[in-house]
Amino acid sequence: MEIQSPYLVFIGDARDQLAAKTGQGIVDWRPERALGQLRLTGCGADLGIPELTVGEAAGQGAKTLVIGVVSPGGVLPAAWTAVIVEALRCGMDVASGLHTRLSSFPEVADAARVNGRHLFDVRHADRPFKTGDGEKRPGKRLLTVGTDCSVGKKYAALVIERELRGRGVDADFRATGQTGILIAGSGVAIDAVVADFISGAAEWLSPAAAADHWDVIEGQGSLFHPSFAGVTLGLLHGSQPDAFVVCHEPTRATMRNVAAPMPSVEAVIDQTMSAGRATNPEIRCAGVALNTQHLGEGAARALVDETAARLRLPVSDPVRFGMANLVDALLKRF
Amino acid sequence: MEIQSPYLVFIGDARDQLAAKTGQGIVDWRPERALGQLRLTGCGADLGIPELTVGEAAGQGAKTLVIGVVSPGGVLPAAWTAVIVEALRCGMDVASGLHTRLSSFPEVADAARVNGRHLFDVRHADRPFKTGDGEKRPGKRLLTVGTDCSVGKKYAALVIERELRGRGVDADFRATGQTGILIAGSGVAIDAVVADFISGAAEWLSPAAAADHWDVIEGQGSLFHPSFAGVTLGLLHGSQPDAFVVCHEPTRATMRNVAAPMPSVEAVIDQTMSAGRATNPEIRCAGVALNTQHLGEGAARALVDETAARLRLPVSDPVRFGMANLVDALLKRF
Repeated sequence: MEIQSPYLVFIGDARDQLAAKTGQGIVDWRPERALGQLRLTGCGADLGIPELTVGEAAGQGAKTLVIGVVSPGGVLPAAWTAVIVEALRCGMDVASGLHTRLSSFPEVADAARVNGRHLFDVRHADRPFKTGDGEKRPGKRLLTVGTDCSVGKKYAALVIERELRGRGVDADFRATGQTGILIAGSGVAIDAVVADFISGAAEWLSPAAAADHWDVIEGQGSLFHPSFAGVTLGLLHGSQPDAFVVCHEPTRATMRNVAAPMPSVEAVIDQTMSAGRATNPEIRCAGVALNTQHLGEGAARALVDETAARLRLPVSDPVRFGMANLVDALLKRF
Repeated sequence: MEIQSPYLVFIGDARDQLAAKTGQGIVDWRPERALGQLRLTGCGADLGIPELTVGEAAGQGAKTLVIGVVSPGGVLPAAWTAVIVEALRCGMDVASGLHTRLSSFPEVADAARVNGRHLFDVRHADRPFKTGDGEKRPGKRLLTVGTDCSVGKKYAALVIERELRGRGVDADFRATGQTGILIAGSGVAIDAVVADFISGAAEWLSPAAAADHWDVIEGQGSLFHPSFAGVTLGLLHGSQPDAFVVCHEPTRATMRNVAAPMPSVEAVIDQTMSAGRATNPEIRCAGVALNTQHLGEGAARALVDETAARLRLPVSDPVRFGMANLVDALLKRF
């Protein structure tokens, strides 16, 4: 189920850099996987990597065409279909995080079959899972959790993985959402799993490992989010983390897409400790990742310092200030 | 999506009464739905209702053949297929709680199509759901929760519904598992829903209602069960109960099918209150249902009394002692 690299990253006619953020994520976090980009006329994004045609990429050994752009309304524009079919004919697999399955487009399904190639619809979780058993696995695990959805859990996990690897620690980012899966080349879209198997899928995602190995697991949702808390809890139980990092966006008043108030970082720590003990009695909070994008530099620094003093934990904004302090403390404490 | 009654309850060649417990549940809890039973040679169970052939049942107005028996290994024995096809030809729908879909058997699928009948695979959740929004709905709700799986949550909910109705209260049992759905004629197999939609499905299951109406919702799993807690939490958030009843089997040392220790009733109360407040700040524990089937009468009575004194809550064994005390208190307090 590993998506083979190197990738040709397709960003189509992305209207701006934000529309190509999956492609950008691959380039930022797994540059060695990104052989080149393929853009259509009028593309408003640029990943800053070599411009390649499908044929050129195939000639240079590209294994997979990755759709690194948001599609308008889940539809596959005709111009995209042509590129996808060409990639399949050139012997490449195709990976997509779109809601609509690639195989639901007859031309794409036919071309994949005729050419014996794989279609990866990473938003779906097609392999069977077992129900979770809750048994402690060797190896160390860190899970990013959040006060809400979309507060930077994936980004924090990737920064922590990079910091760990930079210190020579054997660490793996474990992806639980479509963008993360396309970046890492594997993972499971945990919110697409049948409810009975959430924790089982999370157990599968971070298997038994060497005692000093760290899995850094991308969190989803929030234990307080009325839409997604079940996913969050199953992921917590199956991940059985030794350490968790609370991700928080301090300017948000209500949780994403609902009227529920944002919980405090303290409430998330308490609830995560309390629920997480079911599968790891040693669970502890390793720190807080603040997403200060809506604050000025001074306010951000002040908030980081105030939060660290209040909670007596390492705190940072992973984008602005990095996570060196948190990872230093992690390696001392765990 | 309502399964039409009256039913012809098929219990095949059930080896004993336990193998026909779904059929027995229908007869116990919805006798008005159970027109008759259909048994095959060698059947070791008897539901105590009229013996009818498919033709006789159809002639008396039966709308649905319900499979009220456990099948060996999910396979559909040939003798069963013949009965099912005959029922479809006689104009009846067929409802099943088997893992394997009825439509996966070509003869059954063909007969349903040719005769324009419905096949209900209640273990699957085929309708689309929205994600939960967490907004408070009018009407009162009670959810049975548990220290573990299979401790009597469905049974407790059915007893509470009966006690409420017996007092003239407008109350509906809301089924979340296959047996409950076959008993009630509707519901949703909550553990079969895609993870993203657990709380949304629970919101759909107990819609806005009159202020004095009670939905009595069948709980699933346990917040502490390492396999199923995600389902439990999503169901809790979507049900937004005003009242919950903790179901507990006091002789069990570890949770079902896993090595995890059983949580205490107190721990389940605390965790349910803490998590449930996210969608209903007024959530309170209405009492405890003990499953004392493995205790003698004296020990059971003593445990009920001791638990009630310790927790200062109404406690009973719904099977042994009924739930009148709990429902009396419920109607006073809520």
